[in-house]
Amino acid sequence: MKETLVPLANNHISVDCVVVGFDGKHLKVLLIRRDGEENGEAYHDMKLPGSLIYQDEDLDEAARRVLFELTGLKNVDLMQFKAFGSKGRTKNPKDVHWLERAQSAKVERIVTIAYWAAVKISRSLELDVAGFQAQWVALDDIPSLAFDHNQIIQEAVKYICHYVEVDLMALFNLLPRKFTAAQLRVLYNLLRGKNIDARNFHKKMSQMEYVIPLEEKEQKVSHRAARLYRFDRVLYKKDRK
Amino acid sequence: MKETLVPLANNHISVDCVVVGFDGKHLKVLLIRRDGEENGEAYHDMKLPGSLIYQDEDLDEAARRVLFELTGLKNVDLMQFKAFGSKGRTKNPKDVHWLERAQSAKVERIVTIAYWAAVKISRSLELDVAGFQAQWVALDDIPSLAFDHNQIIQEAVKYICHYVEVDLMALFNLLPRKFTAAQLRVLYNLLRGKNIDARNFHKKMSQMEYVIPLEEKEQKVSHRAARLYRFDRVLYKKDRK
Repeated sequence: MKETLVPLANNHISVDCVVVGFDGKHLKVLLIRRDGEENGEAYHDMKLPGSLIYQDEDLDEAARRVLFELTGLKNVDLMQFKAFGSKGRTKNPKDVHWLERAQSAKVERIVTIAYWAAVKISRSLELDVAGFQAQWVALDDIPSLAFDHNQIIQEAVKYICHYVEVDLMALFNLLPRKFTAAQLRVLYNLLRGKNIDARNFHKKMSQMEYVIPLEEKEQKVSHRAARLYRFDRVLYKKDRK
Repeated sequence: MKETLVPLANNHISVDCVVVGFDGKHLKVLLIRRDGEENGEAYHDMKLPGSLIYQDEDLDEAARRVLFELTGLKNVDLMQFKAFGSKGRTKNPKDVHWLERAQSAKVERIVTIAYWAAVKISRSLELDVAGFQAQWVALDDIPSLAFDHNQIIQEAVKYICHYVEVDLMALFNLLPRKFTAAQLRVLYNLLRGKNIDARNFHKKMSQMEYVIPLEEKEQKVSHRAARLYRFDRVLYKKDRK
């Protein structure tokens, strides 16, 4: 069997990135556009930013490269959380055809190493890098994606919720630099699977010495402007010891 | 390039298992023997139980198969913790030669998916399955292993210590079914990086409602026989809610 020479490590190992953001009400995931052709007809759908790895890079380097190339994001704390290697993950005919076209090679088993990151949704993206059209999609609005990417996202969210039980840092990475008590409460409830109301959450917040009230209020809102708070990373780390 | 036909998925993806045990004083890891030849001379060293994955199995299935084939262990709760894909992990000439011999194929980039498990050290192993000679080696006594297996073990131990902060179940999986307060204290200190003395630990233990004192003492010991305790899984799960 003739082997096509490409600068890939091989065509069996890829990385995928689940980048999560919070818009004040909902968790969102960064997805990119995939274009393909099936039965002579063009189609497009969505997938996670990801790609096969190259010969000259480690897994972490690959994840950072892929995220930058497909969304323009840099300096993101990407954390590996799971390898997906189900024998059926690259068996859907539509995916097989797309891979064969993209790789100019026969498709075989691909194991993907998945990473997650929590970023502030206000960060600017190169939204149209090379036509990949990165966009934020609310978790509940995610359609049927390529490969097993729906499952990867589900597991990422589960992982993040669990992670936040041990370390709230990721939660504060999702909030804007200056946030309201309501935003903190909504996100906390979302990630901890709880339903704490505003009054009880206020008590909880007052015990968080690393949540600092500012002498500022929200700007340009139609409702009554709420006080803003910030997260003190140094105080948080001290508190954890 | 002629491709050798083997029932492997490909020669780029493997699984490795870090199986940890506790003998009452020290943590130990299960290692197997590797035989090779270098510069015309036979040698042997040690490695983690692991192997390339087959076409017809998922990653979790591969890990279970590998552990059973190389050590005889079954019904072990193997948990995936990290993918190791450093571009240099299969570059050591000794490892390259061994792989080429073992796979009858040119060695390329191999990413390994690592699993960990906590098992009771009293479990019987097929210690000499096919000459692999599985043996328990204390963490401090582990020599220089094949590939990056020393690093994989280090990261597994770090992962387990962190994991135990959230869920003590792994700790109780390492203890014998009936254990003494001293064994629990030594292991707890080891995994939590603490140095709690017997008196203070006694107070801590009395708060663990899922640690049940038995009407039994140690048998066949040269020191004063200590009371035995058992771990109540159901009470523990209730306690966690």
